[in-house]
Amino acid sequence: MTHASVTEGKTRSESSSNMRQCADVCIECFRVCNETIQFCLKQGGEHASSKHITLLLDCAEICNTSAAFLTRNSDQHAVTCQGCAEICRECAEDCRRMSDTEMRKCADICERCAKSCEDMSSH
Amino acid sequence: MTHASVTEGKTRSESSSNMRQCADVCIECFRVCNETIQFCLKQGGEHASSKHITLLLDCAEICNTSAAFLTRNSDQHAVTCQGCAEICRECAEDCRRMSDTEMRKCADICERCAKSCEDMSSH
Amino acid sequence: MTHASVTEGKTRSESSSNMRQCADVCIECFRVCNETIQFCLKQGGEHASSKHITLLLDCAEICNTSAAFLTRNSDQHAVTCQGCAEICRECAEDCRRMSDTEMRKCADICERCAKSCEDMSSH
Amino acid sequence: MTHASVTEGKTRSESSSNMRQCADVCIECFRVCNETIQFCLKQGGEHASSKHITLLLDCAEICNTSAAFLTRNSDQHAVTCQGCAEICRECAEDCRRMSDTEMRKCADICERCAKSCEDMSSH
Repeated sequence: MTHASVTEGKTRSESSSNMRQCADVCIECFRVCNETIQFCLKQGGEHASSKHITLLLDCAEICNTSAAFLTRNSDQHAVTCQGCAEICRECAEDCRRMSDTEMRKCADICERCAKSCEDMSSH
Repeated sequence: MTHASVTEGKTRSESSSNMRQCADVCIECFRVCNETIQFCLKQGGEHASSKHITLLLDCAEICNTSAAFLTRNSDQHAVTCQGCAEICRECAEDCRRMSDTEMRKCADICERCAKSCEDMSSH
Repeated sequence: MTHASVTEGKTRSESSSNMRQCADVCIECFRVCNETIQFCLKQGGEHASSKHITLLLDCAEICNTSAAFLTRNSDQHAVTCQGCAEICRECAEDCRRMSDTEMRKCADICERCAKSCEDMSSH
Repeated sequence: MTHASVTEGKTRSESSSNMRQCADVCIECFRVCNETIQFCLKQGGEHASSKHITLLLDCAEICNTSAAFLTRNSDQHAVTCQGCAEICRECAEDCRRMSDTEMRKCADICERCAKSCEDMSSH
């Protein structure tokens, strides 16, 4: 591997390792969103508003879709990663407005997933 | 085609048509459960209990999975149809306990889907 | 309903009816892609190339995700519809290159789904 | 906690930890099946038969569904775990017939997932 190939672009194995890491973050975000939905439904009130629960469902589902594209090494993964990043940002913002530990934990993983998916979709 | 083959088992084309019809019912049940989740979250109270919403989410998801197996003509469709039938029965019962038009509509399609999936899984 | 509201934007019920129609097209595209995957795997050769099968899997999955967002009336449906439109276009083009009736049928529904999702995502 | 409660059943936290571990195995099986599909499509021949690819798709999908039920702590998880165990067993057997390292790796995780899901569904 020459210096040029390092600076100009990712090698195939680096790219594959990045896709693997991004899939891991998507799966972790999928898991935490599903757990958070349970927490919110039990809390009731603002936490269980249809707007908030629907956004958590959306976030869990697009993370799952994004992980599937990444694990099958799809050429279209940039499309789903971009959509995943957008929805994770919205979900993080919505969770951040509430002050519980659980919502902060969910906001954190959504932001981490948004960042990882943005990196993947811009390569 | 002999008389025996008609009475002893479905022909391939009959079976394929049955799978198509069952997939249609699963997809309709998936759609109605998703719509009902929105209705219930807006209603609040008992409708938005974590137990009820989780059962509706379960039902939507297993219907979706069952439809996917049926549309790809999978040899394993009896397994997912059986699981789908069980969960649809539970969901129908839970919806039936409430007296709104919306919940009755959801109970009706869940029962129809349970019946169709039971037929598919016993063939 | 005033003239202004008709020309400036969709009313709520028109929008809901459009979302329903778009979900129907997504579900039909999901079904046809799944059926086409079976056809292609049996054909072998170019039809069963990993690139082509993966694109059909991608298309089936994003159509399914898009339909789920639409049926739960999600505020984020424009994001998934946009991704769905992009992947449907790619899949249609890939199917169009082959000359069988089955591939043309798949290309047709993919194009119809791309058009419907583009309309939804631009509103 | 009395001695009886320890011997007669799992405590809530033990059960939750078991569900988490089972979800992790399901997700790993989902990932490996998706990777194996790519490997098989590139290999061609017996590996890319519609029967084998469809079984790998089935296995990936039911593992994903099972993981979703487990992460949302669903009362219905025994139903999806039982279906997942059955399909994982079939997939493991089908992979075991082929002699590559990749297929053995897939058979191993499918067997591990079947075992974990059987344990979950019998509790």
